[in-house]
Amino acid sequence: MNDIDVLISEVGPRDGLQSIQSIMPLEAKQAWIKAEAAAGVREIEVGSFVPPKLLPQLADTAEVVAWARTIPGLAVAALVPNFKGAENAIKAGAHKITLPLSVSETHSQANLKKTHAQVLEEVRKIVELLETLPADERPAFEGGLSTAFGCTLEGAVPEAKVVELARQLIDLGCDEVGLSDTTGYANPTQLRRLIKLVWAEVGKDKLTGVHLHNTRGLGLANAVAALEEGITTLDSSLGGLGGCPFAPGASGNIVTEDLAFMLDAMGLRTGIDLDRLLMVREIVIAALPDEEMYGFTPDAGLPKGYGTGGWGVAA
Amino acid sequence: MNDIDVLISEVGPRDGLQSIQSIMPLEAKQAWIKAEAAAGVREIEVGSFVPPKLLPQLADTAEVVAWARTIPGLAVAALVPNFKGAENAIKAGAHKITLPLSVSETHSQANLKKTHAQVLEEVRKIVELLETLPADERPAFEGGLSTAFGCTLEGAVPEAKVVELARQLIDLGCDEVGLSDTTGYANPTQLRRLIKLVWAEVGKDKLTGVHLHNTRGLGLANAVAALEEGITTLDSSLGGLGGCPFAPGASGNIVTEDLAFMLDAMGLRTGIDLDRLLMVREIVIAALPDEEMYGFTPDAGLPKGYGTGGWGVAA
Repeated sequence: MNDIDVLISEVGPRDGLQSIQSIMPLEAKQAWIKAEAAAGVREIEVGSFVPPKLLPQLADTAEVVAWARTIPGLAVAALVPNFKGAENAIKAGAHKITLPLSVSETHSQANLKKTHAQVLEEVRKIVELLETLPADERPAFEGGLSTAFGCTLEGAVPEAKVVELARQLIDLGCDEVGLSDTTGYANPTQLRRLIKLVWAEVGKDKLTGVHLHNTRGLGLANAVAALEEGITTLDSSLGGLGGCPFAPGASGNIVTEDLAFMLDAMGLRTGIDLDRLLMVREIVIAALPDEEMYGFTPDAGLPKGYGTGGWGVAA
Repeated sequence: MNDIDVLISEVGPRDGLQSIQSIMPLEAKQAWIKAEAAAGVREIEVGSFVPPKLLPQLADTAEVVAWARTIPGLAVAALVPNFKGAENAIKAGAHKITLPLSVSETHSQANLKKTHAQVLEEVRKIVELLETLPADERPAFEGGLSTAFGCTLEGAVPEAKVVELARQLIDLGCDEVGLSDTTGYANPTQLRRLIKLVWAEVGKDKLTGVHLHNTRGLGLANAVAALEEGITTLDSSLGGLGGCPFAPGASGNIVTEDLAFMLDAMGLRTGIDLDRLLMVREIVIAALPDEEMYGFTPDAGLPKGYGTGGWGVAA
């Protein structure tokens, strides 16, 4: 991170593709990931190690992970729902694995068919497995606190519960926790408060990233609030693909294109070439002609003269 | 403002309707304004005193202003392009008039067919006229600094020019200046900086409102940045109607529905009833069936259990 200020972690090939009906062919996934890495995106969550029966869209995740590892400089991340998934992710060579723990236990049951205690037991076993690996083969392990800002099933979620589960994940041996606004309920004030509460409990180095959705249009406002607090990793999805099936008509993740433009315009370094990033969108549109793509910057284009003199300069 | 924290100033009937081809009938405008005022919106820019030949959509502005004045508690605002427009706005009884001064002189020529000097001369004549009125008949007079964050014709705009024009508007006798991101170029960092620069020049009480667009998706992120600096009035448009004809495919103003939800969720009082506000949208959709409406909250709905216990409470 020495040469960038903010790490944009692209989650479209996982969060995006799992939430649409179309199945993207392996070749198209590879073209997408390759082009986005070439545009300067440093971390991509390329899939999820769930049973192919549940998510046929991601059945080729092991292949995608193994292939993506060959891209120089790219951190290859994957979601794992349980110990079995973690085993497979490690075998495929993921650099980072994330296990989602829903703060809403109702959502945890719906999502993973597990109580909190059962998910935490999987975490314990995964850490045990990780500890048997040599350091250079060990992926980073994040516990992702889903529905941390509210749940479409339970409604409001107690902040004390988020903090308590963060503590347990760290105590069990996760390298980090993440805060996920799975449902697009978060607002900037709540986000700032929750980040500080979790930091107070587990330390600043144990929470560096947030996963935001744009379901109610607040995604980038939340992103700025998180950055101003000191968060340095932001998940986003090309074209805003992804989202919660419980919020019909609403968009998914924050849009990588708009986020990358905003950060660049704010003078923050992401390592991303905006023109090249905007071109990646064409690959996804061609592969998923029936899916709605979100984002405003791709339609509007970059401002006139952007990137030349005068921009971002207090003239 | 004693019982609210943020004034949302609805500009849809002006900024929205001027930028679409459809002409909304007077009765529909009245139904919209009446319903939105009843939902708790305290200020509405109901039209623009431009020649009907140029903007037939707003030809009934004098009638709308005179009628809207009968709504108790509503501040009725109108745009005026010149002295003649101001005369008509005063005659109709507007509580507030705003004259746009484009920081980009190229845009000023395109928009008002006037140089800066010519616009400032109109301002001088308007102030002269206002001074002849008894205090209780005198509308508030704002100079709106358009293209303050960049111009689709000129590109980047010098911040020193924004500050200089703010100074001139205040010296000529405007009650306030406003900062308008006409082109959707602003980012949170730039916005914070420019607010502070203008305040340093003319004082905090002379700049209390900003007019933001969502052309690149940054609208609400900018809104939060402005509020955190201390801005207390935010323009927005129901359904995000409005926008810049130079940015095809891009949306217009920030969306009143999303903004009102965000502020409410942040614990800021706007005086607006969210459920009633979301219903106003139906009136506009029925009257403008061919126009695209923006906004995420109307599709997604309010969060589960929103407004009951647990929300916004640090539990």
